[in-house]
Amino acid sequence: MKFAILFGGNSYEHEISIVSAVVLKKVINQNLEFVFCDEERRFYHIPSEKMNSKTFSTKAYKNEKELFIKQGGFFSKGFLKENKLECECVINLIHGRDGEDGKIAALFEFYSIKFIGPRLEASVLSFNKELTKLYAKSVGVKTLDYTMLRKNQNSKEKLSFPCIIKPARLGSSIGISIVKDEKDLEYAKDVGFEFDNDLVVEEFKNNIKEYNLAGCMINDEFVFSIIEEPKKKEFLDFEQKYLSFSGHNELIEADLSEELKEKLKDSFKKIYNPLFKGALIRCDFFILDNEVYLNEINPNPGSLANYLFKDFNTTLNALADQISLEKMIKINYNFLHSINGQKGKL
Amino acid sequence: MKFAILFGGNSYEHEISIVSAVVLKKVINQNLEFVFCDEERRFYHIPSEKMNSKTFSTKAYKNEKELFIKQGGFFSKGFLKENKLECECVINLIHGRDGEDGKIAALFEFYSIKFIGPRLEASVLSFNKELTKLYAKSVGVKTLDYTMLRKNQNSKEKLSFPCIIKPARLGSSIGISIVKDEKDLEYAKDVGFEFDNDLVVEEFKNNIKEYNLAGCMINDEFVFSIIEEPKKKEFLDFEQKYLSFSGHNELIEADLSEELKEKLKDSFKKIYNPLFKGALIRCDFFILDNEVYLNEINPNPGSLANYLFKDFNTTLNALADQISLEKMIKINYNFLHSINGQKGKL
Repeated sequence: MKFAILFGGNSYEHEISIVSAVVLKKVINQNLEFVFCDEERRFYHIPSEKMNSKTFSTKAYKNEKELFIKQGGFFSKGFLKENKLECECVINLIHGRDGEDGKIAALFEFYSIKFIGPRLEASVLSFNKELTKLYAKSVGVKTLDYTMLRKNQNSKEKLSFPCIIKPARLGSSIGISIVKDEKDLEYAKDVGFEFDNDLVVEEFKNNIKEYNLAGCMINDEFVFSIIEEPKKKEFLDFEQKYLSFSGHNELIEADLSEELKEKLKDSFKKIYNPLFKGALIRCDFFILDNEVYLNEINPNPGSLANYLFKDFNTTLNALADQISLEKMIKINYNFLHSINGQKGKL
Repeated sequence: MKFAILFGGNSYEHEISIVSAVVLKKVINQNLEFVFCDEERRFYHIPSEKMNSKTFSTKAYKNEKELFIKQGGFFSKGFLKENKLECECVINLIHGRDGEDGKIAALFEFYSIKFIGPRLEASVLSFNKELTKLYAKSVGVKTLDYTMLRKNQNSKEKLSFPCIIKPARLGSSIGISIVKDEKDLEYAKDVGFEFDNDLVVEEFKNNIKEYNLAGCMINDEFVFSIIEEPKKKEFLDFEQKYLSFSGHNELIEADLSEELKEKLKDSFKKIYNPLFKGALIRCDFFILDNEVYLNEINPNPGSLANYLFKDFNTTLNALADQISLEKMIKINYNFLHSINGQKGKL
């Protein structure tokens, strides 16, 4: 399988995505293509040997071939004709906006490009933490109780402290605050509303245990990663959370009973199937009094959470092998013929 | 404001969308461009005088200029350079898949093209009737009780009869059955599963009153249409429902108390604001024992439900005037600079 890795995007996690792609390049042991989406959402074909941070931070990527999406793939302009980028499957490795909000999924679905990543509907439901909670409930998975704060709506919701305030549509701990008492609330709201019009407020539980489980479905069977108990300070900040997938942090396999491991896997299955087919996702769970709660879904986890899998390369290729394109609808114009016949009006 | 109307799409409502565009052409009293999306999802620039059903049913449109979406708009290939289609705002008039499922919204958001229509998140929530119910509940609007049937899951849900079975992701009455007793259930499920893996089942209420209300928000103020009580047989079928917006059916303004009219408008506002900003939508409601229930959201109603508005052209132009593009995120590469400085690894 010839993969292309798509990374970058107009996202707060643009730079994280570059790190993610550089790390994944070292992990995937086969020939790859690299497609960079810059902040203006133009695509560039980056040669493998130029996949380093300088290419992007100095904007040297602008000297590379620009690519355009059309039916069937990415194309570059040649002298007399257009050249198609050789690739059988694109790995969507854009984190945050564009990559995880459904835009890239929509582009690939519209232009019939095979890809690994969440489809359109799955993207929208996992990108917005409020929708994730509604979805989780509908498939029988618990999440923590919450209150929504809306920008420009002076709600009189009674909050209890300490609480954690999160923008509804951002990953990566950006814009998140822990609010210990009422006097810090206004500042935390201001920070949150910088990034989103909707904020999710949950009770802050200091000793809560977090567990991450990645996986995907291949021909109706689940392939799971190990269950990770991520290291944390008070909570994971931007840099700490993402340097983890470049191997700088120590990986801890969770020390959990078989029963709880099964509960986590069972919750993962409910979340994944069938909405996330085609994606390799990581679900972050809490365990509280032996009950599993979904914290969030990462539909494009950093470097595809490769470090959690026993045989990542085999899993990735098997996943790609069974991804199919959206079935096209055949248009026969019977309806137009019939109303023309009847009314002769159009 | 120079509009382009986008219609067609790879959708079961492809032909309906053509009718919708032809009708809207007659309604909008200004210079328009027409962009057709064919069943293969290629775009063509259709001259105004060729906007008739024959152009499409005979595939004559293939002789017209092909258009490509790139940053900022639609472009065609000229001899030496690319020509941009002159237009300030695109009206998304693709009904059903592509137009209402979020694909077109995603393309326009990604490529910074100003458009009238639901944004990405709004599309996904209104396209899937199950998600519409979850969303409506979250904003305090009632919907009828329901049960979901999933393909390949032999659920033992007890259904009562008569019930109505609808594919979760299709408008236009396609694939919908009214099931009067158990013996017709399997056939109705087979029909529904032809179109979708998820079916919504509701109790069928024979005498239920349906009311349609269209509207949009312009600078924080709502503009509403009249409230229509659509004519119906047992329920509206494909042809009947859509010929209505070409003016073949008689329009009935609903005879309702001021109190109920206010209730309908209040429910519309809860559904619309802020999720549907940028769109002119039609909400179809039921009234049952003086309570309002949302039936469905049409985020791109047929011919934009123009026949329901007192001054459609003024509304359309005012709506377009205040639509803004998604705010771009500025990438400064501070993070890459910092990790390079610290670790010299990338």
